Amino acid sequence: MDIYLDNSATTKPYKEVIDEIARGMEEYYGNPSSLHGLGIKSEKKINEARDFIGKCINASKEEIYFTSGGSESNNLIIKGLAKPGHHIITTVFEHHSVLMTYKDLEKNGVKVTYLNVDSNGKVSIDDIKNSITKETVLVSIMHVNNEMGSVQDLVEIGKVIKEKSSRAKFHVDAVQSFGKLNIDVKKMNIDMLTASSHKIHGPKGVGFIYIKKGLVLNPLIHGGSQEGGVRGGTQNVPGIIGFNKAAEITMENINDSYKKVNELKEYMINRLSEIDNIRINSPLSDDFTPYILNVSFTGVRAEVLLHLLEENNIFVATGSACTSKTSSVQGSYVIKALGLSKGEVESAIRFSFSKFNTKEEIDKTVEVLKNSLRFLRRVKK
Amino acid sequence: MDIYLDNSATTKPYKEVIDEIARGMEEYYGNPSSLHGLGIKSEKKINEARDFIGKCINASKEEIYFTSGGSESNNLIIKGLAKPGHHIITTVFEHHSVLMTYKDLEKNGVKVTYLNVDSNGKVSIDDIKNSITKETVLVSIMHVNNEMGSVQDLVEIGKVIKEKSSRAKFHVDAVQSFGKLNIDVKKMNIDMLTASSHKIHGPKGVGFIYIKKGLVLNPLIHGGSQEGGVRGGTQNVPGIIGFNKAAEITMENINDSYKKVNELKEYMINRLSEIDNIRINSPLSDDFTPYILNVSFTGVRAEVLLHLLEENNIFVATGSACTSKTSSVQGSYVIKALGLSKGEVESAIRFSFSKFNTKEEIDKTVEVLKNSLRFLRRVKK
Ligand SMILES: Cc1ncc(COP(=O)(O)O)c(C=O)c1O
Ligand SMILES: Cc1ncc(COP(=O)(O)O)c(C=O)c1O
Repeated sequence: MDIYLDNSATTKPYKEVIDEIARGMEEYYGNPSSLHGLGIKSEKKINEARDFIGKCINASKEEIYFTSGGSESNNLIIKGLAKPGHHIITTVFEHHSVLMTYKDLEKNGVKVTYLNVDSNGKVSIDDIKNSITKETVLVSIMHVNNEMGSVQDLVEIGKVIKEKSSRAKFHVDAVQSFGKLNIDVKKMNIDMLTASSHKIHGPKGVGFIYIKKGLVLNPLIHGGSQEGGVRGGTQNVPGIIGFNKAAEITMENINDSYKKVNELKEYMINRLSEIDNIRINSPLSDDFTPYILNVSFTGVRAEVLLHLLEENNIFVATGSACTSKTSSVQGSYVIKALGLSKGEVESAIRFSFSKFNTKEEIDKTVEVLKNSLRFLRRVKK
Repeated sequence: MDIYLDNSATTKPYKEVIDEIARGMEEYYGNPSSLHGLGIKSEKKINEARDFIGKCINASKEEIYFTSGGSESNNLIIKGLAKPGHHIITTVFEHHSVLMTYKDLEKNGVKVTYLNVDSNGKVSIDDIKNSITKETVLVSIMHVNNEMGSVQDLVEIGKVIKEKSSRAKFHVDAVQSFGKLNIDVKKMNIDMLTASSHKIHGPKGVGFIYIKKGLVLNPLIHGGSQEGGVRGGTQNVPGIIGFNKAAEITMENINDSYKKVNELKEYMINRLSEIDNIRINSPLSDDFTPYILNVSFTGVRAEVLLHLLEENNIFVATGSACTSKTSSVQGSYVIKALGLSKGEVESAIRFSFSKFNTKEEIDKTVEVLKNSLRFLRRVKK
């Protein structure tokens, strides 16, 4: 049996989602932009999804726009807003779909401040406050870091931004928190937010952005007038239906899942105490999501450990999936940002949970870890 | 029973595609960027699709990049190549995902020449030749027009571009021709090509671009190193698997389908001769795709006719789906470009076929058309 502990990279779709998508492809194949009944039927389904997903974050359906996923969403928001001469504030450990977008914009005269995070992956509210200038149009901070799971205090951040500037907009990459932590765009003063379906047992290739009413972004994909003119292209109706289904199931159980996964993480941390020379990079605390447990197994290269686990059908990550091929050589920029030692960076493994994981799976994983480490550390001596 | 004659807007997915996607979501949910076996299994599936789809247009798998659809593909290619000061040549009747992208680029100092088309929707080879300058970096011409079905002579166009310039790249929007007409990027000297899955009974939300080896584009979606760094974002594995399945079935029958649909179109044109005061805007000829039959029913507003047909479960279009909501008021810019009279523009209906349509459906459609027109034209008098 596979033990899948890589749920922050992507999740297995719910059975209900698969069924709903199959039905969607059969019944709602009409183009939502078509004037005839088949089109209108599809459009109605999309708007139902827009409505439900809006409610999940305390937004209205007119503020929700569907995209092809988290990366497109981040690019759309950032490029849609920033112009040469603008100033933007972000953190050093955002996802690459944010950081690489800034690298590109910097070539065109956008100024970007990259804030450091502390050893717990927290950005300082004072740093944010002190970085905001008259030119600042955007503060972009991720809710939950995808590699080590730190949670930012969005209420405080939103407050400080709005106190300091009437111009700066607040963008949150919520790809790792949507459906897992509670989000309220009003209470948190969020102007724009990014999420992705495949992280919550929905289909790949679908995401959404929330854009606060009144804000206008330049489209990333020009074309037809779909999605309120913010995103051209025939809408992925069955995908959106599937995303909606995944959101429904996920939100219904959001608190129970949190509790269950929190217990799993606690259990695993306890059992890991049986192993020497490790560092828990995301301890059990409200400052970290329970869905991610990042651990350094000092003296062992993470990729080697990953493959030993894999031989036992246990699937984990050395970092973010989309940078795994480079970070397996250089070590993760996220873990480096925490100021850990080289040995701790190179040996960091991310275990990421879903509510479908069990204590038995954790037991098996710890056993394999123990055996693998005994072997690897002996070999090294 | 529904009579679906809006296959250029979108198609109903093949049953096999729906099954394949459901299986894909079940079995290939791993993130193709993950280092472990589940990821590698997914990556393998994507590369199989890349290989097959490359072969469909005589390209290699390294030249195929998956996207979220035709609109993203067009945006990615055009914005990825054009820089301020560059000159681009296109036609007045391209799809909005091309035209609106140019409108945006023009604000940033890109110069665009919009070539007219003749009353048959053909662009003149001489016009192309005479428009190419030293600054021309791109000539972007659609293969088949999505509203009235004219087919451009890509072999001749490719030849003239390459004769005149070593700098200008040739981009083809093949969204309406991929899987319907034969495409050979080498024989046609095509440097970049766009296609979309949902037009050939594949899933929505998936497309691809072909980029000739050696050409480098700036990404539209920055992020991870997926798709050779050209497009960040977790790949839509089940969607790509479904697209591949749709391409397989479609390509296997490409010539038979062409023949069958050609007969349908011929049959419908013959039967339409029973109706007065019409203009066939896309006659039966090699210069037009058999998949599209655009007809003006002079004296009748297209949208009114569309709704009368719809009451009989016959689904057609007044133009491109994604501009249908504006063109139903103003008339289609594509049909206008042919130089037709106001009355012909406002009364144009697009019937678009698939191999699943039948002569009986055409008979029913012509009967309803006759009755509707008799009624509408009488009311008008
Ligand atoms: C924090 C974060 N942002 C953005 C993304 C990108 O989302 P997607 O894979 O849907 O493009 C991811 C995951 O890959 C992520 O973890
Ligand atoms: C010629 C042409 N180009 C581009 C597109 C856009 O494709 P998609 O709907 O997949 O974004 C379409 C169809 O909508 C089209 O007909």
